[in-house]
Amino acid sequence: MGLKLFYHPLSQPSRSLYIFLKYNNIPFEARVVDLKEGEHLTQEFKEKFNRFQKVPFIHDDNFVLSESIAIIRYLASKYEIKDNLYPSNFKQRALIDEYLEWQHHNTRQHFAMFTQHLWFIPLRTGTPADQKEVEKYEKALQETLDKIENLWLGNNSYLCGHKISVADLFAACEIEEPRLGGYDPTKGRPKIKEWLERVRTELNPAYAEAHAALNEVASLHKI
Amino acid sequence: MGLKLFYHPLSQPSRSLYIFLKYNNIPFEARVVDLKEGEHLTQEFKEKFNRFQKVPFIHDDNFVLSESIAIIRYLASKYEIKDNLYPSNFKQRALIDEYLEWQHHNTRQHFAMFTQHLWFIPLRTGTPADQKEVEKYEKALQETLDKIENLWLGNNSYLCGHKISVADLFAACEIEEPRLGGYDPTKGRPKIKEWLERVRTELNPAYAEAHAALNEVASLHKI
Repeated sequence: MGLKLFYHPLSQPSRSLYIFLKYNNIPFEARVVDLKEGEHLTQEFKEKFNRFQKVPFIHDDNFVLSESIAIIRYLASKYEIKDNLYPSNFKQRALIDEYLEWQHHNTRQHFAMFTQHLWFIPLRTGTPADQKEVEKYEKALQETLDKIENLWLGNNSYLCGHKISVADLFAACEIEEPRLGGYDPTKGRPKIKEWLERVRTELNPAYAEAHAALNEVASLHKI
Repeated sequence: MGLKLFYHPLSQPSRSLYIFLKYNNIPFEARVVDLKEGEHLTQEFKEKFNRFQKVPFIHDDNFVLSESIAIIRYLASKYEIKDNLYPSNFKQRALIDEYLEWQHHNTRQHFAMFTQHLWFIPLRTGTPADQKEVEKYEKALQETLDKIENLWLGNNSYLCGHKISVADLFAACEIEEPRLGGYDPTKGRPKIKEWLERVRTELNPAYAEAHAALNEVASLHKI
């Protein structure tokens, strides 16, 4: 019993939750779901663990919850967390919520789709990446980086102001993902490179621990 | 000054916010943004009204906020609302948050894309709908309806239990949208049809008022 995080280290929102829990010293049990072997696709998994058959999700005693952003809010309500991460002041929190909602059809969607076509699909099928698809999604990824740089970061140190928040945590975990396929998302973007370094440093050692598997693959590409 | 909602009556999350404000007797000024004329696309609009150049958004005195789900949370924190809509109990709220986050890549995405290809694009370009695209998005729409019926509604009266919540409000406003193109989303789905009727009845007269423009177009198709 207690809090269990069901996750996978190559899933971006999984890493965000893992880091959030570690960084805030919330006790939990980590349980990797074997996505590669399709552990989540069985009827038993659907009935016993999670009806959506996706990671991440939590079991908190008998309470089952999916959707990483919903989980962050739940954890921030139940446990004592570092206030700047997700402020109790509702006006400050609203500006972080604005990013957490915006990212679904921007950072989350475009970095995931790009990495799917660049790395996951070729790995699964054993065939080379479809360059046309990769280029299409790279364009969307670059447009998202433009927005992160101009609409979010601006002259601030972090996405929602001068303190790190869960907006930075979720954004960084997405932006790391295409490194799996040897793609450097910070190339030609010194502002994002500096911001990403700040986020990594601030959230270490939990950040490095959550990214160990990804970093290992990326190191093969020297990224 | 005071609270201003910038919206468009054919935008699903715009209608959700309009209904939420009316239903909870929150005083606000409604300001339609002329999307058809591209009012939101100018540099002046970007600087003066909203950096994302999308609807809906609010100005609450000098506080500017985008993203409908973030706005709902902000309003629920600032104003007194009917508690069942978005409960103050964090565990109950988490289950509603789970839907609000889930919907981005399900109800929101698939109903919007289907209606774009069925109705908005042909209207804008003056050419017939691309049937192949329409069929592709109809498949995704029907899969979403399956999930709403089986994973969310189940044997409950509403998506997150036996009381209406903002999950139902956001879902209903999405599901109404393809009626613009003469498509009945409740066809062959008595459970969803009954649920939609319950939501409409519960949220009237605000619901009907917000859907007046959509209903007018839909009535041309006898839907």
